[in-house]
Amino acid sequence: MLWGSRFKEKLNQTALEFSSSLPFDINLFEEDILVNKAHTEMLADVGILSQEDADKIVKGLNSIQSEFDEGKWKPETEKYEDVHSAIEARLYELIGDVAGKLHTGKSRNDQVATDLRLWIKKSVQQIILSINNFQIVLINTAEDNLDTIMPGYTHLQRAQPVSLAFHLLAYVEMLERDKERFDFVLEQVDVSTLGAGSIAGSTLPIDPEFTSWKLGFKKYFSNAMDAVSDRDFALDFLNACTIGQIHLSRLSEELILWSTSEWNFIKIGDKYSTGSSLMPQKKNPDIPELIRGKTGKVLGNYINLASVLKALPLSYNRDLQEDKEPVFDSFKTYINSLDILKEVISTIDINKERFIKELRGDFILSTDLTDWLVLQGIPFRDAHGIVGLVVKYAESAGKNFTNITLDELKKINPVFHEEAIEYLMIDESLKRKKSKGSPNPEMLQSQINNWKSMLFEFIVT
Amino acid sequence: MLWGSRFKEKLNQTALEFSSSLPFDINLFEEDILVNKAHTEMLADVGILSQEDADKIVKGLNSIQSEFDEGKWKPETEKYEDVHSAIEARLYELIGDVAGKLHTGKSRNDQVATDLRLWIKKSVQQIILSINNFQIVLINTAEDNLDTIMPGYTHLQRAQPVSLAFHLLAYVEMLERDKERFDFVLEQVDVSTLGAGSIAGSTLPIDPEFTSWKLGFKKYFSNAMDAVSDRDFALDFLNACTIGQIHLSRLSEELILWSTSEWNFIKIGDKYSTGSSLMPQKKNPDIPELIRGKTGKVLGNYINLASVLKALPLSYNRDLQEDKEPVFDSFKTYINSLDILKEVISTIDINKERFIKELRGDFILSTDLTDWLVLQGIPFRDAHGIVGLVVKYAESAGKNFTNITLDELKKINPVFHEEAIEYLMIDESLKRKKSKGSPNPEMLQSQINNWKSMLFEFIVT
Amino acid sequence: MLWGSRFKEKLNQTALEFSSSLPFDINLFEEDILVNKAHTEMLADVGILSQEDADKIVKGLNSIQSEFDEGKWKPETEKYEDVHSAIEARLYELIGDVAGKLHTGKSRNDQVATDLRLWIKKSVQQIILSINNFQIVLINTAEDNLDTIMPGYTHLQRAQPVSLAFHLLAYVEMLERDKERFDFVLEQVDVSTLGAGSIAGSTLPIDPEFTSWKLGFKKYFSNAMDAVSDRDFALDFLNACTIGQIHLSRLSEELILWSTSEWNFIKIGDKYSTGSSLMPQKKNPDIPELIRGKTGKVLGNYINLASVLKALPLSYNRDLQEDKEPVFDSFKTYINSLDILKEVISTIDINKERFIKELRGDFILSTDLTDWLVLQGIPFRDAHGIVGLVVKYAESAGKNFTNITLDELKKINPVFHEEAIEYLMIDESLKRKKSKGSPNPEMLQSQINNWKSMLFEFIVT
Amino acid sequence: MLWGSRFKEKLNQTALEFSSSLPFDINLFEEDILVNKAHTEMLADVGILSQEDADKIVKGLNSIQSEFDEGKWKPETEKYEDVHSAIEARLYELIGDVAGKLHTGKSRNDQVATDLRLWIKKSVQQIILSINNFQIVLINTAEDNLDTIMPGYTHLQRAQPVSLAFHLLAYVEMLERDKERFDFVLEQVDVSTLGAGSIAGSTLPIDPEFTSWKLGFKKYFSNAMDAVSDRDFALDFLNACTIGQIHLSRLSEELILWSTSEWNFIKIGDKYSTGSSLMPQKKNPDIPELIRGKTGKVLGNYINLASVLKALPLSYNRDLQEDKEPVFDSFKTYINSLDILKEVISTIDINKERFIKELRGDFILSTDLTDWLVLQGIPFRDAHGIVGLVVKYAESAGKNFTNITLDELKKINPVFHEEAIEYLMIDESLKRKKSKGSPNPEMLQSQINNWKSMLFEFIVT
Repeated sequence: MLWGSRFKEKLNQTALEFSSSLPFDINLFEEDILVNKAHTEMLADVGILSQEDADKIVKGLNSIQSEFDEGKWKPETEKYEDVHSAIEARLYELIGDVAGKLHTGKSRNDQVATDLRLWIKKSVQQIILSINNFQIVLINTAEDNLDTIMPGYTHLQRAQPVSLAFHLLAYVEMLERDKERFDFVLEQVDVSTLGAGSIAGSTLPIDPEFTSWKLGFKKYFSNAMDAVSDRDFALDFLNACTIGQIHLSRLSEELILWSTSEWNFIKIGDKYSTGSSLMPQKKNPDIPELIRGKTGKVLGNYINLASVLKALPLSYNRDLQEDKEPVFDSFKTYINSLDILKEVISTIDINKERFIKELRGDFILSTDLTDWLVLQGIPFRDAHGIVGLVVKYAESAGKNFTNITLDELKKINPVFHEEAIEYLMIDESLKRKKSKGSPNPEMLQSQINNWKSMLFEFIVT
Repeated sequence: MLWGSRFKEKLNQTALEFSSSLPFDINLFEEDILVNKAHTEMLADVGILSQEDADKIVKGLNSIQSEFDEGKWKPETEKYEDVHSAIEARLYELIGDVAGKLHTGKSRNDQVATDLRLWIKKSVQQIILSINNFQIVLINTAEDNLDTIMPGYTHLQRAQPVSLAFHLLAYVEMLERDKERFDFVLEQVDVSTLGAGSIAGSTLPIDPEFTSWKLGFKKYFSNAMDAVSDRDFALDFLNACTIGQIHLSRLSEELILWSTSEWNFIKIGDKYSTGSSLMPQKKNPDIPELIRGKTGKVLGNYINLASVLKALPLSYNRDLQEDKEPVFDSFKTYINSLDILKEVISTIDINKERFIKELRGDFILSTDLTDWLVLQGIPFRDAHGIVGLVVKYAESAGKNFTNITLDELKKINPVFHEEAIEYLMIDESLKRKKSKGSPNPEMLQSQINNWKSMLFEFIVT
Repeated sequence: MLWGSRFKEKLNQTALEFSSSLPFDINLFEEDILVNKAHTEMLADVGILSQEDADKIVKGLNSIQSEFDEGKWKPETEKYEDVHSAIEARLYELIGDVAGKLHTGKSRNDQVATDLRLWIKKSVQQIILSINNFQIVLINTAEDNLDTIMPGYTHLQRAQPVSLAFHLLAYVEMLERDKERFDFVLEQVDVSTLGAGSIAGSTLPIDPEFTSWKLGFKKYFSNAMDAVSDRDFALDFLNACTIGQIHLSRLSEELILWSTSEWNFIKIGDKYSTGSSLMPQKKNPDIPELIRGKTGKVLGNYINLASVLKALPLSYNRDLQEDKEPVFDSFKTYINSLDILKEVISTIDINKERFIKELRGDFILSTDLTDWLVLQGIPFRDAHGIVGLVVKYAESAGKNFTNITLDELKKINPVFHEEAIEYLMIDESLKRKKSKGSPNPEMLQSQINNWKSMLFEFIVT
Repeated sequence: MLWGSRFKEKLNQTALEFSSSLPFDINLFEEDILVNKAHTEMLADVGILSQEDADKIVKGLNSIQSEFDEGKWKPETEKYEDVHSAIEARLYELIGDVAGKLHTGKSRNDQVATDLRLWIKKSVQQIILSINNFQIVLINTAEDNLDTIMPGYTHLQRAQPVSLAFHLLAYVEMLERDKERFDFVLEQVDVSTLGAGSIAGSTLPIDPEFTSWKLGFKKYFSNAMDAVSDRDFALDFLNACTIGQIHLSRLSEELILWSTSEWNFIKIGDKYSTGSSLMPQKKNPDIPELIRGKTGKVLGNYINLASVLKALPLSYNRDLQEDKEPVFDSFKTYINSLDILKEVISTIDINKERFIKELRGDFILSTDLTDWLVLQGIPFRDAHGIVGLVVKYAESAGKNFTNITLDELKKINPVFHEEAIEYLMIDESLKRKKSKGSPNPEMLQSQINNWKSMLFEFIVT
């Protein structure tokens, strides 16, 4: 027991179970051991602890980690308040009374903050790697589909022709921003809070700089009270997971749409689909549906912690224990979604010719025709109006852009001539795009080359 | 496997684990068995199943329930998609091929909705009982504190004297509304959806009325598509838990404040407090802090499901699997909070004389003095202004309502006479309250009596 | 100024503007006047006010209402804290010092709660009427489309044939639950809080029962402290708006999908569509998109107030001022969405033959075929497997349910005979549905008749 | 009208009003003019527009800005869909048909994204300045209170002595992180999206690099589809506002607590307090209460946009119009809260001697005493236990740390000697702190000096 000599009654068992964080802070086991070791070494370094005592403690902590890894020892949930108490209790069992020196000048308040920071640091690095791998799959799929013409949608209405490559590269951009956001989180989390004590440091000459360096942090806290009260880094992490998961939900929505009978654009592999217990013909895009659905949870986790922090007076309050579950859950949900959606993408079967036939003659080239009129010197707004009339006429005459005649066009406006008809051919439309950032296949190929060298570099370094 | 004959490849193992709901829908085990039994009996009743087959299936299902209860069989998470698949698979093992008839005219879509409705129905009833017990503790504590005068706060500033009884009875009112809200949820959830099939009922003559009656529901669905798409009842449940938990958070906040050195009004029992690993003198109100903190989670669960449902096309989508975790988690969090906070309340040590001394002479009686002026015929707004001047004068003269003299009052306004001084005595102030719903001790006693007969009646019926 | 005689300095102008609620609580103008009048009449009734004074005040209040209605007087935002102060100030201007008697035994704390309750009561009644009108449009459209066969979707994959009538009636069910939820809100909100004062009623013999009755409330508060602290009714209102708006978002999502080139099922009228500033051919389903998007706002409003209430100590705190904007905004967003989506629905152009041709031969009848096998005595799970093999065979042979031959079926399983082929005809499929709540057209017609008599009755009463 | 020649019916007036964004995107007026001008100059630069036409358009746009600034022209809400349409319509009125050339190669989709990015960029810079000013006030107040000893709280229980300076400097740290977070937002938002068109750039040789440079952006979009679909920068902005507002809510909570009669630590100035309409003696901390309350709104705005973006297919959908209101509202709420809370802080009256007397003898020095025992060679956990016994003994003997005798201490444990008694003197306690980041006054002074040079530098550069 870490406390209690001033108490007359023990904590009620129901209360212990209601309040114990061990069922989830067991996730911080490894980090807690690391922090304990760094702290012990610091105590020896500044002379509070003898080197001999320090060695005993470190050895004991190493044994606990081994026992835990090998499944020989696992703390009982109903016995301990948290992972810190469990480890200290075990240390007593292994090395006796010298274990009582471990906690010198240290509080659970600064330790748990440091543990969580270490854990998020590690997790962010894993996430960035997973994002990178996801981008690589998207880029490879994009490269295979530079000429897969599809309608670009606004308002889910066909707007202008694009390629599947262009569409997928939009997601590569989003994922790149996600990495930048996690880089920012990394910067925020990379601060050691060990040495802040409960709230105000210590009268002992403990050295936060030493432990920060030992634990591999970039810097350490400046104000002990802030150090134990602050969970901004966790909220930033939850925001980054939320935006990341939203991106996956947008892609999932599109995979679901593209898999419908109506779109008939892709087929998701059997390995990533499920059937129906009642309807024998069904094949369902469960993975994208679940990823879309799990966005609710990741967003809920953000609200959870934000609500906890709102109006919380300084410094540590027990409410802060509620930071861990949302962080662990959003991490797991998001990284699993990334990893499995990457697999789904890499196995989809794309119906490359699905749209090209249907788009021949489609009004989707109206903007290009408008641009052509502009090049003939017609003010844009007038050109827009003229093409609107062409569409209206064609619809009422049951015609489209393949079978409308030059004569018909001239009747609407005499400015039309032969060249206009060329502008109505879908197959060449992407090559006509001139502006940067457009789906011009040459430009996309060059972007893909850039991405490849960047992402490859990332992996080898 | 419930499906798959049309598939060429099996579901990938990672995909199975990502998508399996078994780790949490195992909570619905009992309900799933009940639903299966009712369905089987219905199939026999309408003649789709022979009575013999039905008996075998029901017997098999009973065995599975027993095995499960006795811990002899537990479905492996990594093997099944969900609790339904696990039970059907086990049924095959126990009774052979006749198990294949169980699923006739039934889909997981209608079954899971019915399971969840049964589960929420049961849970709501437990919650209402816990609320009731909480109210009883509050009422008993209130009855002991009819004369415990304390400041009533607005803006956390002392406003007017009230009693602790009055303050606690405000919470009894809130809890009563919580019961009404859960009653509404009960009404919404008490609808059987069994027989809706995947989406559109069946060409077989299945009978939803029979199963609804067997399962003890009040009524059954009218539209099969709505039946499998609808999770309104779950969102209503999460709303009720959120508002309920908010009430507990408000009370927790007050317990935390009242336990501070500054307030020094109550002491929370040692059994429900913890100490500090670093600071030996500390005793912390952990339980109220955790309840306050867990409000974030309960609110997050509401957002979770609301976000899942937003813009979801009909009918069943796999996203709906995400309904269960928030429902189970909010239930557990809320009912545990209710039960433990009730215990905390019943063991607090109240410093009954804490405020009465301090309030003698306090300006907290200003409103009463204003009312007295009104009774002398002064328009209220003027009376308010006069008392404001009295306060201003007293503050600058370093006086208060016990030592201000009649002469001083008369200098501010000649209307003051002897009787005014009586109005400044705190001890009698509550008895002067005349309006209904006020902290007049006689009125409160009568309310307490009413509550007692109501709540007692609830328990015996 | 309603207060201030004890203050040495006036409220800073920036602070006044930051804190003023007048820009939004002006919405409560009418309710505030009503409350003031009822309070005045009560004061006269219990003898605190002379009848003469009361008459003057009521007359003054009536004038203020007229001035306001006719646009002759409008309180300046930068001058008053809130609508109550503005009205009292105007009353002084109109009737002189007797105005100072209005506020006797009344606080802004109880008044604003009563105002808001009156406002929500009125608004809920308007909402219920709008829902009713929406249902009528859906039912009429359903009746026109009893035979409009379309695929019923699960996982957005074609699952079983249904009719558009059946699909729309699912929404009628949702809307009916919305009315039940608003009925519950109505019950919760229908409680007068006038007479609670700031926190603890009054030493004056004011009569909350009288004012409650005058204002048309069903009952009045029991505990004054609860009365001024409680905003549960507002949160319940926001929950009801959220669930209601989610329903509209689901329908909007479907209208958007059905309007795509891919679905080509409906056309939204020109009156409710917009074009593109750049692309002349575009016609966009803006209204459903906006309704879908505005769901975020309505959900955000719920979170807003829930966060405000979390851990708020009793009784009134200024934070509660933040209750009004979310309530007003969710009301406006939701009722406008209801009213305009109703218009959109009533003007859509439905492509009734869109699906029937495509579904002839489609595997969407697999479940019916499975049911047929069950009727031949095959256990369901085996039947499911057999039909799965039929689908697999047909897909690989490039066949469908119209051109697969009986011989081919028999090769897969000898149980097939002539009758099976009949089960593969889509046109008769709905009529084969036997179970209650299914899309059997006769059952739907009968439901429609019931709805009509119910909803019509609602309107005339 | 920017579109419509293909339409047979005009947009219904109710639909126009429901869908118009003009009531709020009028905020983007200035940005819209700037974007139009930059676009026009680019069109001339690449030769699509003659210089003469370009000059006319730019002149016209300048006039519109002047008219607007001077209040001579204001677009009617009920007439236009948005600010873009209003400006183009006015341009026609001012310069005639050449106005029709403005929109060449530009869509509202890319324009509104660019407008909003410019607006957020400007707003973030204002916020950073306001944060800086807030920090300066905190630092000045801290410097005045280096010796104002107060209890540091954990769990709102007195934990260890700190100074008010130390407490306020914790907030300076939080605010510094807020600036880092807004710096990250600035980086994300500083990307021009002009030239992306509706979705896919243009067949005209427009130059996004030129307009990006003209508008002062750091870089421009890489993928046109992403450019019009992306609102990550807005969500990052809302996250930064949320965390920032949470910090203000924590400080507000403390100001409210410190202003209570129970704490009696500070008095908020009359200029920033309000009174009660009923209770003449009241003075309320309204500003901190409102700031605490408005946190709900800022959090609600985050949820709002996150819900809008969830599962939204690419590219532009009308739902995205809902991005603006939360962004504008969170900006206004947050920056106003910053500016006014700064004023409140700078005028509070601090009761500097409030705690020092009360803390003499308080058990709050228990940790220091424990540290002293550690220095005597006692293992920490044992030392903790010994001091716990001291506290328990003292409490039962009705003693405290000033009047407990050395003999009594020795009876509990013989290790105690004279020096221990010195450790129990509160006045010197802060100076005994040795570790970095602690409230040692010398260390704090040095931090203050650093802050001053950093923040001052920020202002002059």
